[in-house]
Amino acid sequence: MVDILHKVGIKSPVAEVYSALTTPEGLSAWWTTDTQGKGNDIGGVLQFRFAAGGFDMKVLELEQGKRVLWEAVDGPQEWIGTHVRWDLEQVDDYTVILFKHEGWKEPVEFMHHCSTKWAVFLMSLKSLVETGKGAPDPHDVKIDNWN
Amino acid sequence: MVDILHKVGIKSPVAEVYSALTTPEGLSAWWTTDTQGKGNDIGGVLQFRFAAGGFDMKVLELEQGKRVLWEAVDGPQEWIGTHVRWDLEQVDDYTVILFKHEGWKEPVEFMHHCSTKWAVFLMSLKSLVETGKGAPDPHDVKIDNWN
Repeated sequence: MVDILHKVGIKSPVAEVYSALTTPEGLSAWWTTDTQGKGNDIGGVLQFRFAAGGFDMKVLELEQGKRVLWEAVDGPQEWIGTHVRWDLEQVDDYTVILFKHEGWKEPVEFMHHCSTKWAVFLMSLKSLVETGKGAPDPHDVKIDNWN
Repeated sequence: MVDILHKVGIKSPVAEVYSALTTPEGLSAWWTTDTQGKGNDIGGVLQFRFAAGGFDMKVLELEQGKRVLWEAVDGPQEWIGTHVRWDLEQVDDYTVILFKHEGWKEPVEFMHHCSTKWAVFLMSLKSLVETGKGAPDPHDVKIDNWN
């Protein structure tokens, strides 16, 4: 089992970051414009769609302002059963996110791609909360020959 | 042992990317402006300096246009003995880089930070080769409360 790890610090109150991770309005403004479902109920499912496909994420844990945990229940085979974990903490002027996409079976090329792409989307989330403007798909920063 | 993985695709001939990874001129234009040493000799040491400190990388392997492998021989304790591996391949119009920073002992917060920061610097490398302008330290994109 191998994991993708990232850290980002956002100059904002933690409530704004938590909202951007738990509402379709927030998620659609930094990850993909085509986001539907329920992000603020345990057991709810969020549907994220991109030009090339998409992911369904089941909400496993929620702790207001502290933690969000999803399980990928549909999408690319490599993602199914993996967990996406968001741990939030206020540190001085920042909301610090420790991000983990856990449970990849093998460090395949697609995992390399997703790791870099997650970083790009985390920077989109940071930009959204700090400036009001993110770069969700299809306006996302392209990183390689896949996207 | 845990690894940082990334993938980036750069619209350029592989020779240009290889040069940006093996010459102080190239490295100083995307990673840190304060880069010295020898990057194109096996056994050579590159010195990368940042405001907060730096890294010394010993060149372990070089294969023209295909691979670069460094070992961190000085720097933060968590980096010492880790390997930074660059595998290059021409795919259609792209030079595809599979990047690995291998051999972290523990998935500490600093590893999360470095993973995101590597992605930012890989995008700086992509920008340098594609447009002529990278964003090396101290002009790098800031990601969190550390840098």
